[in-house]
Amino acid sequence: MDSSRPALGIGMVGYAFMGAAHSQAWRNAHRFFDLPLTPDMRVLCGRDEGRARAAADRLGWPEVETDWRRLLERDDVDLVDVCTPGDTHAEIAIAALEAGKHVLCEKPLANTVDEARAMAAAADRAARDGVWAMVGFTYRRVPAIALARRLVEEGRIGTVRHVRAQYLQDWLADPAAPMSWRLEKQRAGSGALGDIGAHIVDLTQFITGDRVASVTSRLETFVTERPWPDDGVGGLTGTGAAGGATGTVTVDDAATFLARFDSGAMGVFEATRYASGRKNAIRIEINGTDGSLAFDFEDMNVLHVYDAGAPAEVAGFTRVVVTEPTHPYLAAWWPPGHGLGYEHGFTHQVVDLVEAIAAGSQPLPSFTDGLQVQTVLDAVVTSAQSGRWVDAEVPDLDARDTMTPKERIET
Amino acid sequence: MDSSRPALGIGMVGYAFMGAAHSQAWRNAHRFFDLPLTPDMRVLCGRDEGRARAAADRLGWPEVETDWRRLLERDDVDLVDVCTPGDTHAEIAIAALEAGKHVLCEKPLANTVDEARAMAAAADRAARDGVWAMVGFTYRRVPAIALARRLVEEGRIGTVRHVRAQYLQDWLADPAAPMSWRLEKQRAGSGALGDIGAHIVDLTQFITGDRVASVTSRLETFVTERPWPDDGVGGLTGTGAAGGATGTVTVDDAATFLARFDSGAMGVFEATRYASGRKNAIRIEINGTDGSLAFDFEDMNVLHVYDAGAPAEVAGFTRVVVTEPTHPYLAAWWPPGHGLGYEHGFTHQVVDLVEAIAAGSQPLPSFTDGLQVQTVLDAVVTSAQSGRWVDAEVPDLDARDTMTPKERIET
Amino acid sequence: MDSSRPALGIGMVGYAFMGAAHSQAWRNAHRFFDLPLTPDMRVLCGRDEGRARAAADRLGWPEVETDWRRLLERDDVDLVDVCTPGDTHAEIAIAALEAGKHVLCEKPLANTVDEARAMAAAADRAARDGVWAMVGFTYRRVPAIALARRLVEEGRIGTVRHVRAQYLQDWLADPAAPMSWRLEKQRAGSGALGDIGAHIVDLTQFITGDRVASVTSRLETFVTERPWPDDGVGGLTGTGAAGGATGTVTVDDAATFLARFDSGAMGVFEATRYASGRKNAIRIEINGTDGSLAFDFEDMNVLHVYDAGAPAEVAGFTRVVVTEPTHPYLAAWWPPGHGLGYEHGFTHQVVDLVEAIAAGSQPLPSFTDGLQVQTVLDAVVTSAQSGRWVDAEVPDLDARDTMTPKERIET
Amino acid sequence: MDSSRPALGIGMVGYAFMGAAHSQAWRNAHRFFDLPLTPDMRVLCGRDEGRARAAADRLGWPEVETDWRRLLERDDVDLVDVCTPGDTHAEIAIAALEAGKHVLCEKPLANTVDEARAMAAAADRAARDGVWAMVGFTYRRVPAIALARRLVEEGRIGTVRHVRAQYLQDWLADPAAPMSWRLEKQRAGSGALGDIGAHIVDLTQFITGDRVASVTSRLETFVTERPWPDDGVGGLTGTGAAGGATGTVTVDDAATFLARFDSGAMGVFEATRYASGRKNAIRIEINGTDGSLAFDFEDMNVLHVYDAGAPAEVAGFTRVVVTEPTHPYLAAWWPPGHGLGYEHGFTHQVVDLVEAIAAGSQPLPSFTDGLQVQTVLDAVVTSAQSGRWVDAEVPDLDARDTMTPKERIET
Repeated sequence: MDSSRPALGIGMVGYAFMGAAHSQAWRNAHRFFDLPLTPDMRVLCGRDEGRARAAADRLGWPEVETDWRRLLERDDVDLVDVCTPGDTHAEIAIAALEAGKHVLCEKPLANTVDEARAMAAAADRAARDGVWAMVGFTYRRVPAIALARRLVEEGRIGTVRHVRAQYLQDWLADPAAPMSWRLEKQRAGSGALGDIGAHIVDLTQFITGDRVASVTSRLETFVTERPWPDDGVGGLTGTGAAGGATGTVTVDDAATFLARFDSGAMGVFEATRYASGRKNAIRIEINGTDGSLAFDFEDMNVLHVYDAGAPAEVAGFTRVVVTEPTHPYLAAWWPPGHGLGYEHGFTHQVVDLVEAIAAGSQPLPSFTDGLQVQTVLDAVVTSAQSGRWVDAEVPDLDARDTMTPKERIET
Repeated sequence: MDSSRPALGIGMVGYAFMGAAHSQAWRNAHRFFDLPLTPDMRVLCGRDEGRARAAADRLGWPEVETDWRRLLERDDVDLVDVCTPGDTHAEIAIAALEAGKHVLCEKPLANTVDEARAMAAAADRAARDGVWAMVGFTYRRVPAIALARRLVEEGRIGTVRHVRAQYLQDWLADPAAPMSWRLEKQRAGSGALGDIGAHIVDLTQFITGDRVASVTSRLETFVTERPWPDDGVGGLTGTGAAGGATGTVTVDDAATFLARFDSGAMGVFEATRYASGRKNAIRIEINGTDGSLAFDFEDMNVLHVYDAGAPAEVAGFTRVVVTEPTHPYLAAWWPPGHGLGYEHGFTHQVVDLVEAIAAGSQPLPSFTDGLQVQTVLDAVVTSAQSGRWVDAEVPDLDARDTMTPKERIET
Repeated sequence: MDSSRPALGIGMVGYAFMGAAHSQAWRNAHRFFDLPLTPDMRVLCGRDEGRARAAADRLGWPEVETDWRRLLERDDVDLVDVCTPGDTHAEIAIAALEAGKHVLCEKPLANTVDEARAMAAAADRAARDGVWAMVGFTYRRVPAIALARRLVEEGRIGTVRHVRAQYLQDWLADPAAPMSWRLEKQRAGSGALGDIGAHIVDLTQFITGDRVASVTSRLETFVTERPWPDDGVGGLTGTGAAGGATGTVTVDDAATFLARFDSGAMGVFEATRYASGRKNAIRIEINGTDGSLAFDFEDMNVLHVYDAGAPAEVAGFTRVVVTEPTHPYLAAWWPPGHGLGYEHGFTHQVVDLVEAIAAGSQPLPSFTDGLQVQTVLDAVVTSAQSGRWVDAEVPDLDARDTMTPKERIET
Repeated sequence: MDSSRPALGIGMVGYAFMGAAHSQAWRNAHRFFDLPLTPDMRVLCGRDEGRARAAADRLGWPEVETDWRRLLERDDVDLVDVCTPGDTHAEIAIAALEAGKHVLCEKPLANTVDEARAMAAAADRAARDGVWAMVGFTYRRVPAIALARRLVEEGRIGTVRHVRAQYLQDWLADPAAPMSWRLEKQRAGSGALGDIGAHIVDLTQFITGDRVASVTSRLETFVTERPWPDDGVGGLTGTGAAGGATGTVTVDDAATFLARFDSGAMGVFEATRYASGRKNAIRIEINGTDGSLAFDFEDMNVLHVYDAGAPAEVAGFTRVVVTEPTHPYLAAWWPPGHGLGYEHGFTHQVVDLVEAIAAGSQPLPSFTDGLQVQTVLDAVVTSAQSGRWVDAEVPDLDARDTMTPKERIET
């Protein structure tokens, strides 16, 4: 560990897919970035001690705990990183904040708006004491996305007219694909909408500095019964109820919605697990009066930029390979043309979080930002039931630390 | 002219953008395809004799008329090709059919559902006498689109789950772009929705053999006042009211809608003239249980095909360059790798039309098909006003000649 | 036919692939471009009267001749269009020029440098009487290529350092692919080198305004015996010696060569019929001190342009869709975003040729330009035999009408 | 550190660009892969103690040495990782092997063939005692490249006919770009040829299992004088002679060569630092009788695969996103669609190296493989001087551990 900076003790709860990604970030961020505090991986928490121990060995945590409450009592833990399923976020995060621990909480912030609201309120209270909370919308830290935001902020594309965003996966396209806890409403909260749709709501709001005001939607569950896998393990990381049986899918397979942004921009959103051949395709295109931006996570080191002011003869979308030292986060990495991968978003998240904590400022996205995304998703669900346009509730923000993206940009 | 086949005398009404494209098709189709009837370009009709004469010289029509009714009286005209703005389609097409002339009518079939319904009824009546009517959804004849339909018909992508379609242009993105008749509801009927949205409704229904059952939508007019150009000429082909003044835009600039197809597939549609940098981007992606298809008119000789049954190691979207002799329409053209252009869709339209007429069968898309697209657009408009889901009316079809695409595929 | 301009009577020799492409151009050029002379398709010439008659009917020529010398005697023929195999070019073209007929001659100009030299000399003599000759390097007229040249001329990419060019086909990749006259040295002159390598030599010289000075090369014939097709027809357009037997391939299957341009730029060239999956991929990339250009005929309406002076943050290759009215040839065609196809290069060739004839100026590329390409190919062959660098002979140019591309740019 | 496996003590010499990349690999490989030995980062060596200490803190090495010979004396160092410039490789690597330390040596193996030969001999001797040496051609471990090799090995593309490979950078395209040690022959050995050309020689031989037999080439130095930067620091990592002055470039700026592979396949190679807009574009295309493969490092998680046996109707290049668990190295990482970055090649290099050491087998590429690449580069240089084809010397291989790639594939 870098001995020249104070340590920031980290305790992480959960060790599945997100746990591995977060560990990689905690382990490496200070090796590339000059951080004001040096993350110190202190303890991993998981209910099953044997599994937790094995994960800790693999991921590089020297100690384990089996009860997350223990992390709150430890003086060597300054920050609790919550990587568990969504139904446990509120309890852990609120308790941690009340115990004076900074909190990084995976998205979605919670499975319900009520829980998210309680978490945002707890974060507001904690912030008054310099204890900070952040929600992990990590794709914001993909350099091409951060560049997109910067270009919009600089006015490069003028007034935004259109936002089209898709998050396409295909792991359920096969009707025989197995059941998983991710398909159960009680555990997962929602399906494609909350799991991946949340990202494109956050990303488009982040890039545009605008906010989804109202939506009309359609949710669909194409296949309602699926077989539990023989070993009772459902999905990449979860555990199903029982082997041999079938389970009922109680979440959405796919979500589509139209949106009206505060600015009047038109949004079209689609999140699905049935887009055969698309593994993790986050596609965002923004059209403004003066230009356009296009991104596809399948080519994540690239941002396509259109400048409407260029001479017609040579105008077109420029394929910007986002690996220059002047690009967000890139100065810390490799020479131009040497691309980054999925996990680097997590590393950048650690960088932004640690710098905010050291500076005593609100790390972004805040829990209020996470709550706001949740209210949009909630409006989508309500609209799917009513068949009508539904306004998304705007969280009552604490003026001190929870500016909305739009306001952040304008000031 | 090829002397070995009977002639089919053509009279064309209108000579702007569409008139030029149609002329190119009538002039060349029989030079590449072995047609049962040889199109004979007889007479061009336009109200202004001088302009019509100049156009006829340029486009290759030996004679001109200034009143379309004259075409109906001429024995040497077997087919009337209607290339005028939408508000005149019904009168001309119905009269021509009643005069025993075959009719090719540009899309949209009409500016209102009522007119379209009357046209479809007239077409049904005429069909009983072997007089045929067809609506010009010419993009169906882009080989990559025709290949897409064939692959869906063959079951290559299984059950369709998702249809996403965009028709993106940018000629109004600049708020200072001039006023045009295309922006006046009275002349144009509707804006982006009817002009370009109609195409993606037709194309997705054509490819999937499915029908849009209900929609929820948002229409938007971003800029409501625009300057008439100094010369009073509005837009590429139309004529504005007066120089120096501004006009009120009374049509939609952009249309977005979610759709439910008969099969339950989810549709997401977007048509706009504000997508900076996208000149004529028709993008369609279809995801099925067994595969996917993707098309972008900016790369019109290519269809991307995903086969979900391929081994994971080498699975992915295959970039099929649609220039092989086995591809639709291609055997008549150049060797593999030598692409076609925009205008070839019109040539193929002539081929399909002439072959159907010679065979005494209904050319497709029929006027009923055109009417059905119109009812979908009508539902989009209604939904935009009510904020609710609206079912698209299903035309009462004449069993003899107006099978829907879906039924055509299943039989 | 447009009656307002004087006619230019055309007689065409040959009616296979190139004959069809040229006919399409003669038939349509004046329908889109305002030509000073109106091409009038008068007579098609082919040795077999029946076949020639059928082709004439199909392609739109009212008369046929079976001896090309007859064309030279006809007063109604102003221009002879030579679309026959390369071994006949010299005889026909020289005789036609001497008879006072303008000549358009397909590439390669001839099968040998000696023949090409005689043709260039004949063209020089004829030019003194206002009789013009042009060689058909039609890909120069693909708008994206013409735009590339314009950008280089304007200095947009600075001093050229690298030229890399590939012409990739795959119709011989299968060792069982049939024998063809195109694989016989006597008829075809050379293989991939002369047939398609000639194009990339011409194109890169055209774009850069520079000249290949010396080369080192490797030619290869991978498969030396191939079966004649049963019907004795070899290849798309030719006729083989006998059915059932095999023939010996006496031309190169593939050619690779390094080049030194006059300016010192480094060239890398590759022409092959064995690039599986590449049907007609002409790929050219030019790197200069101030920018780069990249083209691929598989996406022929696009030119990729890199501006080294752009801010690093938004620098990259811009995908210019070459369909704007300001782009070469495009004002005559469709609105932006409506792409052209392979055949339009031939139409543009007619435009450039007719305009030069009417203006009394040398149409380009001249026969001397064609000869110069031939000397480069000759150097490639010599190098392949000697294993050493070989200088390409620079034709002794007639000062009046045969400026090299470089000089044309600099003056 | 994972306590369940024996440690492998690592000492690294050098800490610039390569040192950072290697450190990242040593730090993380065992966090994702189940390694038989756990790398233990023991000591970093650099001549300047202060700088070395700072680098060690940053990169995660607990100790530093200022003389590499000290590493050889330390019992806790099992492997020496050589990340210094090429002129020091031979001395360090040979001494380390003789001291019984395994060696990982950055490419190029050495600056001269003689040095490389001595290193390969030393590696052969050491191998008899189970001390192993490997050269760091890390791009072999990009999953898409490893997949390419696997597909060739499986016979998917049949007999290879064409290899075209480019390594394009642009950091010298600007004539005013500063002088650097990388441009001095004495330090760097060669320019673009040795620095990046070496990679594409290795990669194409690796993928095809074939060997470059002979070459003809052209090397060029476009700009021979460049300014030393004011701070005397030349290039990313090196140190120049003096501030304010200019230096003479004594290496090649660009290298082009044609190759003949043992199998008769035709190769075309190009390595340059003058390809404006190409930052680190390693592009490889292989055409075989039964298929083709194409790769571009700018889109490093993708391999394009063409299967000549596919039905023509749906044949084309398939864009394989190389992120499936069945793809090389991928099972250890993230779910499908979550791409890797540049640095992961180094991690995979550690995995392969550690597994080979634990298994007591020769890690590949061996020093003999590195020597063989060197002899190809040497032939390129000789050819550039003589203007003739030059055969690459085939190293006299030690039968026990230095099979060539081709032999590895065939057995």
